[in-house]
Amino acid sequence: MPTQTDAAMMALAVRLAARGEGAVEPNPMVGCVLAHGDQVVGKGWHQQFGGPHAEVNALAAAGERAAGATAYVTLEPCCHTGKTPPCTGALIAAGVARVVFAVRDPFPQVNGGGLQQLTEAGIECHTGVGEEDARRLLAPYLKLTQAGRPWVIAKWAMTLDGKLATSTGSSQWISSPESREIVHQLRGRVDAIIVGAGTARDDDPLLTARPAGPRTAARVVLGEVAPGSQLARTIDQAPVISVVPSQVARHRAADGVEVLALGGRNHTERLASLLDELGARRMTNVLIEGGARGLGAAFDGGLIDEVHAFVAPKLCGGADAPSPIGGHGLADMTKALALSDVAFDTPGGDVYVRGRVARA
Amino acid sequence: MPTQTDAAMMALAVRLAARGEGAVEPNPMVGCVLAHGDQVVGKGWHQQFGGPHAEVNALAAAGERAAGATAYVTLEPCCHTGKTPPCTGALIAAGVARVVFAVRDPFPQVNGGGLQQLTEAGIECHTGVGEEDARRLLAPYLKLTQAGRPWVIAKWAMTLDGKLATSTGSSQWISSPESREIVHQLRGRVDAIIVGAGTARDDDPLLTARPAGPRTAARVVLGEVAPGSQLARTIDQAPVISVVPSQVARHRAADGVEVLALGGRNHTERLASLLDELGARRMTNVLIEGGARGLGAAFDGGLIDEVHAFVAPKLCGGADAPSPIGGHGLADMTKALALSDVAFDTPGGDVYVRGRVARA
Repeated sequence: MPTQTDAAMMALAVRLAARGEGAVEPNPMVGCVLAHGDQVVGKGWHQQFGGPHAEVNALAAAGERAAGATAYVTLEPCCHTGKTPPCTGALIAAGVARVVFAVRDPFPQVNGGGLQQLTEAGIECHTGVGEEDARRLLAPYLKLTQAGRPWVIAKWAMTLDGKLATSTGSSQWISSPESREIVHQLRGRVDAIIVGAGTARDDDPLLTARPAGPRTAARVVLGEVAPGSQLARTIDQAPVISVVPSQVARHRAADGVEVLALGGRNHTERLASLLDELGARRMTNVLIEGGARGLGAAFDGGLIDEVHAFVAPKLCGGADAPSPIGGHGLADMTKALALSDVAFDTPGGDVYVRGRVARA
Repeated sequence: MPTQTDAAMMALAVRLAARGEGAVEPNPMVGCVLAHGDQVVGKGWHQQFGGPHAEVNALAAAGERAAGATAYVTLEPCCHTGKTPPCTGALIAAGVARVVFAVRDPFPQVNGGGLQQLTEAGIECHTGVGEEDARRLLAPYLKLTQAGRPWVIAKWAMTLDGKLATSTGSSQWISSPESREIVHQLRGRVDAIIVGAGTARDDDPLLTARPAGPRTAARVVLGEVAPGSQLARTIDQAPVISVVPSQVARHRAADGVEVLALGGRNHTERLASLLDELGARRMTNVLIEGGARGLGAAFDGGLIDEVHAFVAPKLCGGADAPSPIGGHGLADMTKALALSDVAFDTPGGDVYVRGRVARA
């Protein structure tokens, strides 16, 4: 039976796992703790894509003290040879007595196989300890593995009266320098940054993380990329993808811009196709930065998983000024999409609200 | 010279003054502390319109210990006979040695006269101690006294994507029960609650404070009040005013509804005239509860003094869904109206942001 110690050790493993964020994808973030009772003898986490797994790092830290220990792992240990040898073998060889893991790995080559191997080797196994926290952390990996699409983070900055820009399209800057710093951190850990054609045209954005983060995101425009634009002139810094309807026969594109022709009768369908394509490229997290039309297309398709909204304590007014999510929207306020895991912060005097779309 | 003790005593006087909120208007909130050095010998505040002033309450609490004390008052002591005798006379008679007050009273019958009487009686006077905090508290009184208009509080509830309602007008309920409780507290301390004609028609609101607060606000509709509406059927609970353009010759109005015909070429001008009229009636605080058109008219006229915004962590979407402030709005985001004295809270999981419009 899982104990209170098990819960505490798994919570530590989850915290360790989170250190890999941005560096391990498309691999999962995984943490591992080796302990004798309350005594931790080894800690490890998956630090870098292609590098050793959490279990291997923890076993290395524990050395001979691994024998007879309980291993706490946030995800079912792998039982296949990928970029590294299987972790089940390493745990068995080290003489670990008991393995507790939080979430079963749906990855086709694991998917219960790790549990089976460990059990067959006579190791006592428990699953489900700390599952909720581990699932929260693993959600992008689980979505990519199970649905073949990246985790979609929607980000916007708006005034306290709900405006993404003025009625004439002026939007720089709504949020504080501290808020924009957080956006750059977000950009630096995702695989793609998506903006609508209007935002690309009106704002002429660069869409890079400054300073650079652990990943370099592809910059995706839902429309054409103008030859003289900042995006087109910085192909050497990060890839640029122009998404165009497959019905259109010919597209102009600046040198080095990848033109991706995708089917779909409208923005929402084309965006869904784009997510399939980015998932096929093993992208784990993508960030949609607007504008209202792009975010509306994502919302109408039920494509948003997570929201990061910055609300600046200022007023702009204007019946024609766009608010963050356009599209068709919902008709009935009682059916509004609630966020879960909501957290608040106040960077530079803004209100920063993040949360996940609560799914049934 | 004012001392550190002076600052601390005045801060206490400001806190005492705030206890009168909602009960003393159109009088100012005033607090008074009597002290010998660090030793407080009497505290008082203006508790109720028509009742004794702060100084008189503090003198009564101090008794004979008032002699030789310093009196800390948030507003210049009055020197005229209004509903009660002048406070200057009471302070002089009690033998107070020194009077420190925060803000000079612009009320025509005082306006420096209190200071003069005290000085002439040989009492040492200082002004300006704790002035910023006292002015913040006295702002509605000072505006009514100097500009002849009430302090205008704009309130709205919106989704995290900036929607006041869905594209079809559905808006109940966006905010949490805890947020709505705060709105009822606001309603219970203001003199009037203003809504646009669209909100009155679509929401059929009651616009009363539930439970009742220290004041009963008049309910003002910027347009006609339908005979069968909740407003028309509850005239016995609180007055209802229907504001109509003076160009229109005849107006239907339900029994007991006051019809106020006001000039002005548009919503903004008519709203400004309404504020003049409510100011003439000595209303100190009014609350504009929407909708987007009414708040837009107020914003375009620079008529908003304070904002209370409730942001619910949910999404609604829709390019046609209204955001809180309509009207013309601003063209340039760098000119967005910044709020000062911004405070945050999270009632029932909403983000509650309140602040004041920062004026040059």
